[in-house]
Amino acid sequence: MEILVPFATDAPKTRLSPILSAAERQVFARAMLRDVVDAIRAAGHEPRVLATGSLSIDASVTVDERPLDAAVNDALEGHFTEGETAPVDEAVAIVMADLALATPPALERLFTADGDVVFAPGRGGGTNAFVSRHPDFRVDYHGTSYLDHRDIAASIGANVDVVDSFRLATDVDEPTDLVEVLCHGAGRSRSVLEEAGFELETADGRVTVTRPDRVSEAGPDERDQSG
Amino acid sequence: MEILVPFATDAPKTRLSPILSAAERQVFARAMLRDVVDAIRAAGHEPRVLATGSLSIDASVTVDERPLDAAVNDALEGHFTEGETAPVDEAVAIVMADLALATPPALERLFTADGDVVFAPGRGGGTNAFVSRHPDFRVDYHGTSYLDHRDIAASIGANVDVVDSFRLATDVDEPTDLVEVLCHGAGRSRSVLEEAGFELETADGRVTVTRPDRVSEAGPDERDQSG
Repeated sequence: MEILVPFATDAPKTRLSPILSAAERQVFARAMLRDVVDAIRAAGHEPRVLATGSLSIDASVTVDERPLDAAVNDALEGHFTEGETAPVDEAVAIVMADLALATPPALERLFTADGDVVFAPGRGGGTNAFVSRHPDFRVDYHGTSYLDHRDIAASIGANVDVVDSFRLATDVDEPTDLVEVLCHGAGRSRSVLEEAGFELETADGRVTVTRPDRVSEAGPDERDQSG
Repeated sequence: MEILVPFATDAPKTRLSPILSAAERQVFARAMLRDVVDAIRAAGHEPRVLATGSLSIDASVTVDERPLDAAVNDALEGHFTEGETAPVDEAVAIVMADLALATPPALERLFTADGDVVFAPGRGGGTNAFVSRHPDFRVDYHGTSYLDHRDIAASIGANVDVVDSFRLATDVDEPTDLVEVLCHGAGRSRSVLEEAGFELETADGRVTVTRPDRVSEAGPDERDQSG
């Protein structure tokens, strides 16, 4: 199975800017990417990173500067075009780089599920990972991509399976998502947050994250410039 | 397996008040409860509702006015005390009433998993459902209950398993959670939202819900009084 992990090298994870500086977001995004690559390897596959720019990582990297949809759709087309001389039933998978909770067992459930197209939906209508065994399946990640992707699969006559995984549904985009990393994560992603001083905190019955060692008045980017 | 579904009959789902009136929240909370009861039955079990007040529902109801922890812990103790004359290995499960995405397959994974205590974690550090086969396991739902419950299990020597399910991890508490019901839900919960006019909407790359037929200036409670 060919497995691609798209990764934006420039200004990743901007929605975490209220609590992480630009430099910290770069470090954290790369930590999540490395955790995803490790989990895919532990599930028995060798992933390739599809990056928007050059990247230093112990993995095969293909640079494609185009937006996500164009880069992924080109890769999907290329997979099955090359497949003319290879086994036509070999699958291709796309796994997002911010699935900090991904574990080998969760990924194995995705990779081994039947279906021309197998989705791991993300929270908020997203598509966090999928496997395609159909040469005509293409992506459109804008908006409720999970519903759109189901429509695309139906329009090409592909049968669909869905993997019900909290770990694969949890992409880390916003400050509250860090709660999930500190509760359920491991590896580099969690270490980066712990070393940055993040802790779980309960307020008004809801669990959030806090950085007790930081002065709350200073924005993270200001702090970075002074440090 | 004894399966209990705790349900607060008074003022449920207050965090949905920005988009649902008090009367609507009552209807929606009961719709979710009925969907959970149906899913448990379709998984082959007959649940009992542990309600804080009287409730009209086609299911066995036990009224316990105490807070959640006290009511559930009393039920857990009662289960294993009765067990002195029954098979001691019979399990008891607690399933939250707001798991609007729960399906029979997701619940079967929970009910059939090994482990003295089996957790289905919820988003934000919660515990959305669990099975206990250990007479000494007790709950503490405040804060990061998932981590606390793991500690409690460890303190009594219970071995733990965890079910990785997006459907069971999704409790419906806040307006953004309605996105999940409209994307992945079925049954009464989804119907109630659709009949109330909710639709999915994409704004700034994020998916949210909207009620196009409502005047946005009026709060839901005001609307209710005028209607």
